[in-house]
Amino acid sequence: MGFSGKKMSREWDGVVTEVEDVRYFAGYSTLERQLTLLSDRIRISSYNAAILGNADNFAGRVVLDVGCGTGILSAIAARAGAKKVYAVEATDAVEFAKKLMVANNLDDVVTVYHNTVEKLELPEKVDIIVSEFMGNFLLRESVMDSVLFARDKFLKSDGAMYPSHCKMFFAPVYSERLAEDVWDTYHRNLKSWEVAAEVVFDLAGFDIKSLAGEYEDSLTTGLRSSFGVEVEPPEMLGPAVVVKEIDMLTTTFEDVKQVKKSFELKIDHCVDQKPPKLNMFAGWFSASFKGSPFAPSLVEVNCNNSPLNEDTHWGQEGFLVREPLDLTNVDKILCEIDMSRTEKNWRMYDVRVTHQTCSTDGKLGPQLSTLYTLC
Amino acid sequence: MGFSGKKMSREWDGVVTEVEDVRYFAGYSTLERQLTLLSDRIRISSYNAAILGNADNFAGRVVLDVGCGTGILSAIAARAGAKKVYAVEATDAVEFAKKLMVANNLDDVVTVYHNTVEKLELPEKVDIIVSEFMGNFLLRESVMDSVLFARDKFLKSDGAMYPSHCKMFFAPVYSERLAEDVWDTYHRNLKSWEVAAEVVFDLAGFDIKSLAGEYEDSLTTGLRSSFGVEVEPPEMLGPAVVVKEIDMLTTTFEDVKQVKKSFELKIDHCVDQKPPKLNMFAGWFSASFKGSPFAPSLVEVNCNNSPLNEDTHWGQEGFLVREPLDLTNVDKILCEIDMSRTEKNWRMYDVRVTHQTCSTDGKLGPQLSTLYTLC
Repeated sequence: MGFSGKKMSREWDGVVTEVEDVRYFAGYSTLERQLTLLSDRIRISSYNAAILGNADNFAGRVVLDVGCGTGILSAIAARAGAKKVYAVEATDAVEFAKKLMVANNLDDVVTVYHNTVEKLELPEKVDIIVSEFMGNFLLRESVMDSVLFARDKFLKSDGAMYPSHCKMFFAPVYSERLAEDVWDTYHRNLKSWEVAAEVVFDLAGFDIKSLAGEYEDSLTTGLRSSFGVEVEPPEMLGPAVVVKEIDMLTTTFEDVKQVKKSFELKIDHCVDQKPPKLNMFAGWFSASFKGSPFAPSLVEVNCNNSPLNEDTHWGQEGFLVREPLDLTNVDKILCEIDMSRTEKNWRMYDVRVTHQTCSTDGKLGPQLSTLYTLC
Repeated sequence: MGFSGKKMSREWDGVVTEVEDVRYFAGYSTLERQLTLLSDRIRISSYNAAILGNADNFAGRVVLDVGCGTGILSAIAARAGAKKVYAVEATDAVEFAKKLMVANNLDDVVTVYHNTVEKLELPEKVDIIVSEFMGNFLLRESVMDSVLFARDKFLKSDGAMYPSHCKMFFAPVYSERLAEDVWDTYHRNLKSWEVAAEVVFDLAGFDIKSLAGEYEDSLTTGLRSSFGVEVEPPEMLGPAVVVKEIDMLTTTFEDVKQVKKSFELKIDHCVDQKPPKLNMFAGWFSASFKGSPFAPSLVEVNCNNSPLNEDTHWGQEGFLVREPLDLTNVDKILCEIDMSRTEKNWRMYDVRVTHQTCSTDGKLGPQLSTLYTLC
């Protein structure tokens, strides 16, 4: 289209374009979207407990809230006794935050900035950074980058991150229900291709069959993208495995640009299906609030979107296995996950999942590999 | 958000930003979207009949196809005997057009350009401009601007426009079915506001009630926007009225930037509803292919998305009247429509509809007025 995205002043990350950010931020600017975040009981109660439960660590401190949205984390930090809270929000939702601080008499403590944290300037360094930056599968949307940027620029050397530690989980799943949604879309799109090809050939003698390759590619996009799901606990075929642990005080941008891990998934439960099968992997996160080595939390809170937990606005990230795996006599799956940023959009990841069944007698199935887009 | 849209080289229209165009074009770049256009029997057969039915006017001529998409209009023009067809497409769908021209052995006649028509340079002037630029209510999406730009820059003084004449229609409607869709969304959003307000107050002592005004505003956005509908013929309460006629050879950019018209809507049919009511106006278009004064069409084809016609991908544009009008003894409605470009996005229109019922005894109801966004 001839459009060349102008680089933002995020020099440490050469691929951000303004257009991507405009699109991304637009998604969070509406009150409807903010209400979804505010309605999430797990999200709200976790941050509330983590901050108010450790009010001693907030009392008299200076706090930065990265991506404050409507400002609820800033408000909680102020109520916990923070001396000063700087709240920064890139989207137009910032207007809600400004208004709410005034309405809740917090505008003397909380200063709200309409900016990206990458362009923000503050009059002082901060003791604590709070942020709710997590995507379904933690790194989705790549907002952690902005939190790490804020840490490196604004956090005092003895400062604390809220949350302080994050984990990424991966689990084996069988769900006909969730797979059906994806296949329904596939078949609806296939039908629309057939109709269009017939209409233009019959009515205008125009043959579009030479686009069959492009069409097959476009058809399978849905199958190759991971997607938001809500896995029911009985659909889990075994325990989740931790594929990445992140210490928010010490992790680097390089650490989160690529995640690669080999691991085993234990199969200890089969959905009522003969033969037993797997047709999906699911990913999620946990975020823990342990304070810092200098100011450990009194109460350690853990926020997560596990299928075993109450539903959240996140749900989990599903990775469909197109040809369900036969799990007859299989008690584990040898697995590797390899995630790296896509070339076209720094907020997305390519996720390669390689897996091989292993039977109780040690026999290995074929090694299979699928490349997904986490977008 | 600090983003400042860079102006495109569309100097005659100072408000286009690259970001708007990137967003807009992205919507048409996928094969799925193009298939929707190709599956539309009315659309395809109208252009096919208009061009092939007037092959004498195309034989040996030079043609420009503005916004060619997959290139079907160019292919038809080539089959009608055009000497040369220049096809220009701003979106990535241009790759489909290039491939289809080769596959259909038309690439010697049809040259496909990946560009906006505003930035296009051609080696010669053209005899005919073909384009399918029409939004549901003709001007929606404002693509006509680009067609007029192309006409002023590339069309010979004795050239022809396909289509040559357009009309905008407006009609009175009663449809519980269509209104319900809008109100369902309204009530779902209202519920989500109530849930969020309760959750954040109960769990975090955060009071968001001061956003009630913003919320009311956001809630009613759906009610204040016109929306795509498919009106059933029995839901029409009277004949449609022409609110704008456009001669594509002579109309100016100023002509289509604002449309203002007073008119009467006759009520001659009531949906089975007591008392009889109106709860919507519907808008649509017709595009006629009459050739030019120098080369009139042999066959005059009319393409339209009237509710009385076979369904199209366009459907009609619905304007909900929130408080249904009581039509007891009403035989006409005095109406004014006033459309002008919105300030924030040149592809959108503000549409003010003012109406007043008039009874069989000449008695006038209250004058009511609603401002809609056509987006």
